[in-house]
Amino acid sequence: MIISVIGGEDSLEDVLRLAEEVGRELGKRGVTVCCGGGGGVMEAVCRGARSAGGHTIGIMPGRDASQSPPNPWVEYPIFTGIGYARNSSVVLTGEAVIAVDGSYGTLSEIAFAMIHDVPLVGLDTWDFDYRGHDAEKIARVATAQEAVEMAIEMAKQRGGGAK
Amino acid sequence: MIISVIGGEDSLEDVLRLAEEVGRELGKRGVTVCCGGGGGVMEAVCRGARSAGGHTIGIMPGRDASQSPPNPWVEYPIFTGIGYARNSSVVLTGEAVIAVDGSYGTLSEIAFAMIHDVPLVGLDTWDFDYRGHDAEKIARVATAQEAVEMAIEMAKQRGGGAK
Amino acid sequence: MIISVIGGEDSLEDVLRLAEEVGRELGKRGVTVCCGGGGGVMEAVCRGARSAGGHTIGIMPGRDASQSPPNPWVEYPIFTGIGYARNSSVVLTGEAVIAVDGSYGTLSEIAFAMIHDVPLVGLDTWDFDYRGHDAEKIARVATAQEAVEMAIEMAKQRGGGAK
Amino acid sequence: MIISVIGGEDSLEDVLRLAEEVGRELGKRGVTVCCGGGGGVMEAVCRGARSAGGHTIGIMPGRDASQSPPNPWVEYPIFTGIGYARNSSVVLTGEAVIAVDGSYGTLSEIAFAMIHDVPLVGLDTWDFDYRGHDAEKIARVATAQEAVEMAIEMAKQRGGGAK
Repeated sequence: MIISVIGGEDSLEDVLRLAEEVGRELGKRGVTVCCGGGGGVMEAVCRGARSAGGHTIGIMPGRDASQSPPNPWVEYPIFTGIGYARNSSVVLTGEAVIAVDGSYGTLSEIAFAMIHDVPLVGLDTWDFDYRGHDAEKIARVATAQEAVEMAIEMAKQRGGGAK
Repeated sequence: MIISVIGGEDSLEDVLRLAEEVGRELGKRGVTVCCGGGGGVMEAVCRGARSAGGHTIGIMPGRDASQSPPNPWVEYPIFTGIGYARNSSVVLTGEAVIAVDGSYGTLSEIAFAMIHDVPLVGLDTWDFDYRGHDAEKIARVATAQEAVEMAIEMAKQRGGGAK
Repeated sequence: MIISVIGGEDSLEDVLRLAEEVGRELGKRGVTVCCGGGGGVMEAVCRGARSAGGHTIGIMPGRDASQSPPNPWVEYPIFTGIGYARNSSVVLTGEAVIAVDGSYGTLSEIAFAMIHDVPLVGLDTWDFDYRGHDAEKIARVATAQEAVEMAIEMAKQRGGGAK
Repeated sequence: MIISVIGGEDSLEDVLRLAEEVGRELGKRGVTVCCGGGGGVMEAVCRGARSAGGHTIGIMPGRDASQSPPNPWVEYPIFTGIGYARNSSVVLTGEAVIAVDGSYGTLSEIAFAMIHDVPLVGLDTWDFDYRGHDAEKIARVATAQEAVEMAIEMAKQRGGGAK
């Protein structure tokens, strides 16, 4: 099973700790982490995953490592050369998505998860709304462990053949 | 000058009226409209622009007209074949962006405008926030005319050589 | 009708003259030119088209004009930010494609035209073959006028509803 | 080290045998295989790699497994949703590329390897030329073992820090 974790490069310390814990919880359960391959949340989640024996994929915006250096915990860097348009691929590659952070890239990925009906779990991330009726398709949780359990559960329910 | 107007396929009547008026105001001023080329807000804004003598570009998700039929008011359909990843191109092609609507695609485009620092005007669209400090880079206005005047002004200020 | 003309930045003088003539012949017939928006063949074909009153679209690799300056004859620059992956969009946007040149980008676009069954006309461009049986789907011609007439004819035949 | 192997879905039996051997030789040497994730050459190379204990990545054109089913030997499917524009990512993800086949997709990938200066080895694949001077940047070899040794050697030479 692959689960994508989305988050930006400039997150605060508490968010990074959360992200690392998410990675560890995924790794412990044998789930491969997919992310954007950069620093910040992406680096923290990869480090956590690897520390627990998990595997990690980084879908990079640039065309090679000199343009887009993967963080040191990315095992399989995918070089796309399509810039931030790769945010869509980050989301589609996960059987579920966990959002940890409030960068603009994360907001685009949340939107792509909702466009493509990829199960989406939010852990300290964007609030959003349109016209007062909560238009979100996001399951909000409070801890890394809850996020991981919820994401795995949602991925399994979806997986009845879909993926 | 090209200005992108973002919005979804399933908007309510009042949103469609707004979008058509945005198109008309852009067309009257000789500004070309870029959009996603589909129905709903995209069709309304193109119809408005053409009715005022303006030009229209539709950046389509599909690889041809049978997969992605452009609305009848698109003058120049660009077929990308890259699906919703084309949302990024819709935003980048505008010298400014006007958001009219609350679809998930629109949210992804708002995020791309903020990622790439494309001037962004919001007219009846998503609210969003992270951790209480308004993290938005969006100028909110109330009427189609204000939206168009603001977007043109922001595009000009940016344009001091940039584009 | 939109026809795409593909070719690189570093072409020889005789190739550039051909490309300009192709643009002129398309413009005279009211056909809009789509290309990659850069220099060389792309600039020559746009200049030719505009000199004959035609319209021109440039599908740029970069995210804005500072990263990817359109040549001066591009009327509608589309900024994709997806690098050379945009070569696929250049081909798909044309109802037919005319190849004039031997750059590597041109070869990728020839291949995309064949992948997507976009009618393809070759005018002084790559030879290619696999295992001795000519695997090409390319109509080779000798003059700009023939290229344009052939491309328009092929686009019309295809267009029986397809596009 | 990751090496990409490119080839189509409809290859003849002898080509498939070659592709499987390429996969086996890569797997034996601990090199991860990247490919387009589909059938034919892509399936054969993945099967070969896995049979020798190697890892495999498939960069899929579709947005999920129902739209783009990975072949059974793909360990890490990357869902892009960008169609054949993903051919560029297949090439960029490899530290070198081995071409085995004559499909149109393979020709586009050969072109992308040359555009991006990714080391390129050809094993029973397209011939191509422009104006009589061999414009290729491809090292042609006759056996699977030669292809793999050459590709690894070229990747190492390039890798002096680049990647």
